[in-house]
Amino acid sequence: MFRASEMLSTHPRQPQMDAAALARCIEECFACAQTCTSCADACLGEPSVQELVRCIRLNEDCKTACLATGEMLSRHTEAEWTVLRAQLEACRQACAACGAECEKHAGHMEHCRVCADACRSCERACQELLSAVAA
Amino acid sequence: MFRASEMLSTHPRQPQMDAAALARCIEECFACAQTCTSCADACLGEPSVQELVRCIRLNEDCKTACLATGEMLSRHTEAEWTVLRAQLEACRQACAACGAECEKHAGHMEHCRVCADACRSCERACQELLSAVAA
Amino acid sequence: MFRASEMLSTHPRQPQMDAAALARCIEECFACAQTCTSCADACLGEPSVQELVRCIRLNEDCKTACLATGEMLSRHTEAEWTVLRAQLEACRQACAACGAECEKHAGHMEHCRVCADACRSCERACQELLSAVAA
Amino acid sequence: MFRASEMLSTHPRQPQMDAAALARCIEECFACAQTCTSCADACLGEPSVQELVRCIRLNEDCKTACLATGEMLSRHTEAEWTVLRAQLEACRQACAACGAECEKHAGHMEHCRVCADACRSCERACQELLSAVAA
Repeated sequence: MFRASEMLSTHPRQPQMDAAALARCIEECFACAQTCTSCADACLGEPSVQELVRCIRLNEDCKTACLATGEMLSRHTEAEWTVLRAQLEACRQACAACGAECEKHAGHMEHCRVCADACRSCERACQELLSAVAA
Repeated sequence: MFRASEMLSTHPRQPQMDAAALARCIEECFACAQTCTSCADACLGEPSVQELVRCIRLNEDCKTACLATGEMLSRHTEAEWTVLRAQLEACRQACAACGAECEKHAGHMEHCRVCADACRSCERACQELLSAVAA
Repeated sequence: MFRASEMLSTHPRQPQMDAAALARCIEECFACAQTCTSCADACLGEPSVQELVRCIRLNEDCKTACLATGEMLSRHTEAEWTVLRAQLEACRQACAACGAECEKHAGHMEHCRVCADACRSCERACQELLSAVAA
Repeated sequence: MFRASEMLSTHPRQPQMDAAALARCIEECFACAQTCTSCADACLGEPSVQELVRCIRLNEDCKTACLATGEMLSRHTEAEWTVLRAQLEACRQACAACGAECEKHAGHMEHCRVCADACRSCERACQELLSAVAA
């Protein structure tokens, strides 16, 4: 349902990097933001919510960082890569922290298992894009 | 890449509605937000930006409304449907306005054609969900 | 610290409405979004988090609706008031629901008392702007 | 109208840092996000929009980074400072880039002058908080 690749190929200015890697990172960011929003809410609905406070917090921060990053990467007119690299790095860190926390609960809560997958997948996409646009 | 359905099926509380329609609307909202962000930026990169001012404005509002709606629908613990219906209605209106504007430029700008599709598709998903959760 | 009034008075296009009412509503939306984010987090940090699940949920939705509304109202080039009215109505509903819930806890949790004030104040500002821009 | 200090002082968990510096940075982030949203829109409404493309782009990225940062700093239950520091750094960079661009137009466009002030003020608040929470 995502149209990030189509939008990149119809953009009047071509990206100065691998368009496929860029599109993949954009989509991972939006998908991970959705998954983390849902995982925070699922944790909140658990009888054991008291033990999931840290997970909810990291879900929320990961959602926030992923949305910001996905949105900033969706623009490439006059991109300022000093800023984008710093935002990608923040997103990579947020995904790593949330992924590690969700993995602790993955054995007994399926939503955390799915969310850990989303976080690790987005973390890798950020890392790959960071490597591709190294200063 | 979206995991909205998986997240709904692993949530400790089951939605009080058709989970497939809900998941579809969530995914349309996030995908449309991404597409509108990209279309606003593509319009900004066009030599004819001066004539695309209204399109950029509606793209931005549609993006904002879609993100808010996709995020709110991703939570269903203690959902307050009076609020969600009003937000869905705002999103439906934003998609309709942006879709109509992008359609005017669809003949000569491919990014507006793709974006009009995203807006109309999201508009329909909002309408379907609104019908399903009518008070 | 807000500069909404200054920004409105230096905008190349003048708003078609009372600029003071518009600036006030914009600032209430951003301030309420901040307060609700903080209240959700404070509830999450309480030993009684289990009993605050509904409050956290409504805080999150109110934050989301307020941010979207504050952002959309901050733009007035080519404003489409059908869309803005619907978004204002969603924000008013979200503030009313969150305000009512926070008021239940205001007697024993100061952060809910402060947050209820923010929600009611934003609800009024949305109502006043809606009256001013009635179709 | 902001209540960030009140919310910090009524939070069940006390921040592990100077609460006044934290509250100031939170408020600067939200205020700068509002100002940048408005400046992007004002630039879009200018007859010379063609020459303001880079300014609009940097306004949008600064808005996005500021909102994400203001929101993440508004939570301090189970704060993960590795993530928060990276996000603060991204925000500092976004403010610096947008402030520098707006300063170029400040002489002939008042909204850019006001926005440059907001960006520089937020950049300083981020820098101060970063110094306070150095690893």
